[in-house]
Amino acid sequence: MKKIQASIVTIGDELLIGQVIDTNSAWIARQLNSAGVIVLRRVSVGDDAEAIERILDEESKEVDLILMTGGLGPTSDDITKKVLCRYFQGKMVVNEAALENVKYLFNEVFHRPVTPINLLQAEVPDVCEVIQNPRGTAPGMIFYKGEKMFVSMPGVPFEMEGMITGTVIPLVKKKWNLPLILHRTLVTAGIGESALAEMITDFEQSLPSSIRLAYLPSYGYVRLRLSAAGTDPESMTVEMDRIFGDLKRQVKEYLVTDQDEPMEVVIGKLLSERNQTISTAESCTGGYIAHLITTVPGASTYYEGSVISYSYNIKEKLLGVKGVTLLQHGAVSEETVIEMLKGVIEKVHTDFGIAVSGIMGPGGATEDKPVGTVWMAVGNQKDFLTQKLQLRFNRKRNIEVTSTMALNLLRKFILTH
Amino acid sequence: MKKIQASIVTIGDELLIGQVIDTNSAWIARQLNSAGVIVLRRVSVGDDAEAIERILDEESKEVDLILMTGGLGPTSDDITKKVLCRYFQGKMVVNEAALENVKYLFNEVFHRPVTPINLLQAEVPDVCEVIQNPRGTAPGMIFYKGEKMFVSMPGVPFEMEGMITGTVIPLVKKKWNLPLILHRTLVTAGIGESALAEMITDFEQSLPSSIRLAYLPSYGYVRLRLSAAGTDPESMTVEMDRIFGDLKRQVKEYLVTDQDEPMEVVIGKLLSERNQTISTAESCTGGYIAHLITTVPGASTYYEGSVISYSYNIKEKLLGVKGVTLLQHGAVSEETVIEMLKGVIEKVHTDFGIAVSGIMGPGGATEDKPVGTVWMAVGNQKDFLTQKLQLRFNRKRNIEVTSTMALNLLRKFILTH
Repeated sequence: MKKIQASIVTIGDELLIGQVIDTNSAWIARQLNSAGVIVLRRVSVGDDAEAIERILDEESKEVDLILMTGGLGPTSDDITKKVLCRYFQGKMVVNEAALENVKYLFNEVFHRPVTPINLLQAEVPDVCEVIQNPRGTAPGMIFYKGEKMFVSMPGVPFEMEGMITGTVIPLVKKKWNLPLILHRTLVTAGIGESALAEMITDFEQSLPSSIRLAYLPSYGYVRLRLSAAGTDPESMTVEMDRIFGDLKRQVKEYLVTDQDEPMEVVIGKLLSERNQTISTAESCTGGYIAHLITTVPGASTYYEGSVISYSYNIKEKLLGVKGVTLLQHGAVSEETVIEMLKGVIEKVHTDFGIAVSGIMGPGGATEDKPVGTVWMAVGNQKDFLTQKLQLRFNRKRNIEVTSTMALNLLRKFILTH
Repeated sequence: MKKIQASIVTIGDELLIGQVIDTNSAWIARQLNSAGVIVLRRVSVGDDAEAIERILDEESKEVDLILMTGGLGPTSDDITKKVLCRYFQGKMVVNEAALENVKYLFNEVFHRPVTPINLLQAEVPDVCEVIQNPRGTAPGMIFYKGEKMFVSMPGVPFEMEGMITGTVIPLVKKKWNLPLILHRTLVTAGIGESALAEMITDFEQSLPSSIRLAYLPSYGYVRLRLSAAGTDPESMTVEMDRIFGDLKRQVKEYLVTDQDEPMEVVIGKLLSERNQTISTAESCTGGYIAHLITTVPGASTYYEGSVISYSYNIKEKLLGVKGVTLLQHGAVSEETVIEMLKGVIEKVHTDFGIAVSGIMGPGGATEDKPVGTVWMAVGNQKDFLTQKLQLRFNRKRNIEVTSTMALNLLRKFILTH
C-alpha cells in the first residue's frame, strides 16, 4: 500500500507578520491523521502570487495532497483564487449554486444588501470542482494534476471545517486506499519530562519498530503518545492495546487520564459519574477555571456557578471572607483561600469547590509575595487540601497554569473523598 | 539597503498530527517584523532528520535568517540538536554554563534530582554560539554559514521568548542594517469585510505603492492594517499618519479603536479614564467575559468581580432574578438578562454591568430557542441596552463571539452615558 502524504498550506500576510495564530493547520492535521493520511509539512506563505506558485511546485513534488486555506476573501489583498486559476490554466466563470448561496446569505442571514464585490465570490476557475459553502460566501475548489489533488478553502475556521468534514475527507478516502493510523495518548501530572523518560527507558527500548512514542510536555503535565501505522486494524489494535496497557501501568502513579483530553473533561467525567457538583471562587484566575469547566458540553449537570471575587469587597460580601482574615494575612494567603472555598461551597451549595488567589503580574507584588505567588484550596464541606505555587511565567500563562493545577488538585481530592 | 528575509521553522511530530497549535510562529513573526525583518515563510516539519535537513537546504537558498524552535527536549524523539550538529559538521561538547544552569534548575527550582538525561541537555555542537536559557534546561544555538544565520531554540514558548528578546533580535539588528517597517491597525465592528471594502474603494485605490492595506476579518469585527517599509523613519511616519488619519475618518462610524488591541483592552482604557467600574453576570459564557477583562494587567482598578450563574438556582440566589421571571420567560430571555444585569450591578456595586444568557450548544435547544440563541444586556443603575444574537458556530466559538459582542455593546453604552 502506498503511503499518502499531504502538505497543509496556509495563505495570508497576517500569518507572516504574526497578527493571527494559525489554528487551521492543527485542526486539518488531526482530520488527515485520523483518515490515515500522513502530513509531511505545514507551510505558511503570504498573499503573494510568486510565493504561492512556488509552494505549489515544491509541495506537489513531494506529496499527493495539498490542502490550502486562506486568501479567498472578497477584498483585493486576497489573491489565491486568481493565482490558482492561472496555475491550473482555467478561466473564471460564475458558479450558479455559489451565486445563489451568496444571495441567500446576504438576504436571509446577514440582512445586508449584496454588493458587486460579494457577487464576485461566486466566480471560480472552470477547471475546478466546486465545494459549496453554506457557512460563508467563498466556495472551496478542488483541482487535479495527474494523481495529485489540490484543495483550496477559506481561512475562516468554521467554513473550512465544514468543507473538510463534509467533502474533502470523504473524497480522499474514496480516491486512495488509506492505511490505518492508530494513536493512544495518556496524560501525566506531577513528574517532569526527563524523569518520566528515565522511568520508562526499558519500556521505550522494548517498543516494536512499528510503534513510536512521543513526549508532549506542557505546563504542569506531560502527555505521552504512542503511534502506529499499518493495514490490519485487528492485529494493530490488539498490539497497541497491550503496549498501551503496559505504559499505563508504568506511569500509574502520575496518570491523570488514558484519553487525549484536558483536565476539565477529566473532572467533568468524574463528577458526572458520581452525580456530584462543583463551584469555583476565583480571584487571580478571573473566571478562567469557570470558563474551562463550561467549555465542556453538558457541564450544566455538574456545574452550578462561581463567584469571581477580584476585590477585597467582593470576597467579603459575596463569599463571606472575614475582614480580619484579609487584614491579617492578605488576599493571597492560605487563610483567605480556605474561607473563599468554604464560602463558595456554602453559597452555591455544591459538593466540591475550588478557590484561588494569587499575583499574576506584571504588577501587584509585595515584599514577601513576589509575582507568581498563588494559594489554592480545593475541598468539600468537611475537608480540604491547600497548595502554594510559585510561578515564573507571564500573566496569561500564570493564569492558565494556575487553572490547570487547581483542577488537578481537585481531581486528586475527589479521588480520595 | 538589502531586504533581510527570514523563515520560521517549527519542528515536532506533534505539529503534524495536530496535537498542538503552533503559537510560536506568530509570536516570532511579530518580533521579526517589528525589527524590520521580512518573514517569507513559516514551515513545520516532523522530528525527522531528512525533513529537517531538507528544510535547512531549501530555506537557506531563499532567506538570510532561519529561526527554528522545537526538538531540543531530553527525550529520544527530540533530534534537532543531533541533526544540526551533523549538518554544520560539529561534534558535541559540554557547555559549562549550560551545565551549571541545568544543575541549578533541578536543585533550586524544580527540587528534583538531576538525572543523566538532564545533564545531556548541556551538550552542544562545538560549532555553534550558545544562547543560555535561564528559563529551562535546553540551551539555544546559533550557527553561521557564509552570510546566513541559523538559530535553534526550545519549543517551550516562555523559554523561546526569552532567547528571542534577549539575544536573537539584538544580534540580528547588529548583523544587518535593517529597514524600518511601519504598521498601523484599526478595529471596526458592525460592518462586514466586503461592505467595508466597498466603502473605502476610493481610499484603497489612492494609496501610494509604498503602503499596503490588509483586511483581517474575525467574528464580529474586522481589523484594517496599513503597512509600509522604508528607510527614512520621519517621512514614513508623516505619510503613514496622514493616510491612517484618512482611513480613520472614512470608517469613523464603525471604529472601535485605532490601536491593534482587543475589545477588553479598549473597555479597560475607557473605564480607567473615567474612573468607573464593571462587573459581569454570566450564564452561557461561563466566566469567559470575566477572563477576558482580567487578562489585562491592572484590571483590578476597574474590575471588582462577577457572578457566574449557570443554574436557575444561582440566578435567583446570588443575582436576585425572580423565580417567576425564569418560569415565565426562561433563562434565555430579555427579561432574565435585565434582572441579571440589575442584580450584579447592585450586588457587586459597580458603575456598569454585562449580563448574558444563551444556548451555546451542542445540547440545550428548545423548540423556540435553537442553539446559538443569546440574550445580552449592558447598562448602569438607571439605564440599559439589550441585544439578541442568533449564532451559528460551535460551542467554543459561540462563547468567544458572545463575549466579544457583549463587550462591544457595553463599549457603545459607555460612550453615550
